[in-house]
Amino acid sequence: MTNGSIDEFGLISRFFGNVGVFDESLYDSPIIPQGIGDDCAILRPPPGHEICLSIDTLVCGVHFPESISPYHLGYRSLAVSLSDLAAMGAKPVAFTLALTIPESSPEWLAEFSRGMSQLAERHQIKLIGGDTTKGPLTISIQVHGLVPVDQAIKRSGAQEGDLICVSGSLGAAGAALRFLHMEAEMDAVNDNIRHLLEHYFCPQPKIELGCLLRSQANAAIDISDGLLADFNHIATSSNVGGLFYEEQIPCSEKLIAEVGSEAQSLALTAGDDYELCFSLPAQRYDQLKGEDLFKNVVVVGVVSAEQGLKMKCKDGSERVLNPGGYTHF
Amino acid sequence: MTNGSIDEFGLISRFFGNVGVFDESLYDSPIIPQGIGDDCAILRPPPGHEICLSIDTLVCGVHFPESISPYHLGYRSLAVSLSDLAAMGAKPVAFTLALTIPESSPEWLAEFSRGMSQLAERHQIKLIGGDTTKGPLTISIQVHGLVPVDQAIKRSGAQEGDLICVSGSLGAAGAALRFLHMEAEMDAVNDNIRHLLEHYFCPQPKIELGCLLRSQANAAIDISDGLLADFNHIATSSNVGGLFYEEQIPCSEKLIAEVGSEAQSLALTAGDDYELCFSLPAQRYDQLKGEDLFKNVVVVGVVSAEQGLKMKCKDGSERVLNPGGYTHF
Repeated sequence: MTNGSIDEFGLISRFFGNVGVFDESLYDSPIIPQGIGDDCAILRPPPGHEICLSIDTLVCGVHFPESISPYHLGYRSLAVSLSDLAAMGAKPVAFTLALTIPESSPEWLAEFSRGMSQLAERHQIKLIGGDTTKGPLTISIQVHGLVPVDQAIKRSGAQEGDLICVSGSLGAAGAALRFLHMEAEMDAVNDNIRHLLEHYFCPQPKIELGCLLRSQANAAIDISDGLLADFNHIATSSNVGGLFYEEQIPCSEKLIAEVGSEAQSLALTAGDDYELCFSLPAQRYDQLKGEDLFKNVVVVGVVSAEQGLKMKCKDGSERVLNPGGYTHF
Repeated sequence: MTNGSIDEFGLISRFFGNVGVFDESLYDSPIIPQGIGDDCAILRPPPGHEICLSIDTLVCGVHFPESISPYHLGYRSLAVSLSDLAAMGAKPVAFTLALTIPESSPEWLAEFSRGMSQLAERHQIKLIGGDTTKGPLTISIQVHGLVPVDQAIKRSGAQEGDLICVSGSLGAAGAALRFLHMEAEMDAVNDNIRHLLEHYFCPQPKIELGCLLRSQANAAIDISDGLLADFNHIATSSNVGGLFYEEQIPCSEKLIAEVGSEAQSLALTAGDDYELCFSLPAQRYDQLKGEDLFKNVVVVGVVSAEQGLKMKCKDGSERVLNPGGYTHF
């Protein structure tokens, strides 16, 4: 804990002392022997397990609009981090929060904490440490999850012939960017726009699906930068390529109703959806497709031995795709 | 990994792909089965061990001056986080870096990485993940260390009669605040000021001492907010108080030469020194005081059953101390 913290002790106990839950009774020995309140928190994975961890930063004006409600900010900040655990097939346990805020407003902090708590409780994950500092609004969250030893799903295992799958429809969060100013009236806007805004402000990390994919998927990643850019990380790590089927790229009806022919391009290249993209042998897909957690899963292509990305178009032609994701400079 | 990242893939591999070291050969099974390069990093503590973790944020203009050299910033950011592991008696293993920068300057990044690498190599700790984003300069670092199960040193174990010890002289980093503009000429300024600046820019986390104190100290904390404020956390957590001996508060000769009678007040209330404060039964102190790692350790007081902090002054009188540390609002 550094100095320069803003009345850290008061703030932490009031707004962050009790965020989220973790049910120790599910385990034979304590998993979180120490939470908030000492120089360090302590995690103790049960025998045969290891800890997956990932840190993500959201900067005001870059990753979210200045106008965002603190409730949505708290929710979304945790959601984007949890999505990385989903991509590895890890079960969330605990998280830390590095929160930099320009001023200490109890109303703002209460709402931020409420949004974060709601998602934390849903996924049974507990806030175990952090640092609260004064400065331009910036949120870094590190999440920690458990996975049986050697069962984490890597990016590097995709094999020629695997099906390229995504966990649900894409593009809605990307389309929401043009409607973010309507956040405050989300309940009053039309169904389509509300659908887009919900995908942006409250993404649902695919934790249960990720755990199901352990020992099934050969590779996985979460879609934060766009389907093509993120699958390209799998392709590069696995030394393979991918052929996508244009007619199978999943876009919701509400997205199509709102943006028309732009929907497919958003689905391929817009980020922020936090669905999973994974590479699955065809026979495993056949075994899993009846599962409840697979009901929104769509096969969007096939892994090729040849590197690079291609699209099999609706007219039967093939064209080369540019994986270019979102970069800022 | 969120979007909005600044050419994250290029930056990470160039400047952060190979920061620090970790010697897996010291262990029977891999401790870091996955570092940078996937959705998550993976840590696997060896049997009988658990993971201590702590996150700290440094904000430009709040925790360090805008003029700071990137080398010192990289070094100091990691040092203040490692100090929390020292306070628990944990052996550092790995860290993550959430780096927010206004622009992507290769020269700046190279120097920042070099400062961080130097300390990381000294403590055999490896950078295993992170997020690089565009925005106002802010650094959050989470450190991870190993400790045998149930042997972490808590704040809550101090007992009446324990000696209150500190690991070295205090106040130099606090005194440095008035000389920070001389950073660029550190090699040219007088010995005293250089001594102060070195304590501020390159604090030395007391990792080895922390590990030695496991199963010895009843409580420990690192001094980031000032001796009184930080001991007060031990006192509060342990339901005890403390009596300090005015004549034993350690100030370096160089500090006294530079600031005179202010030295003691700085030693008691200024932060940023990152020495350890710990509570040790007297007979253990006698056993340990011959150790090399104890050569700078000073007994500064004794733990009292009565709550609150007091000072036994040089004239024999006792006065009540205000533990008030550094808070920002």
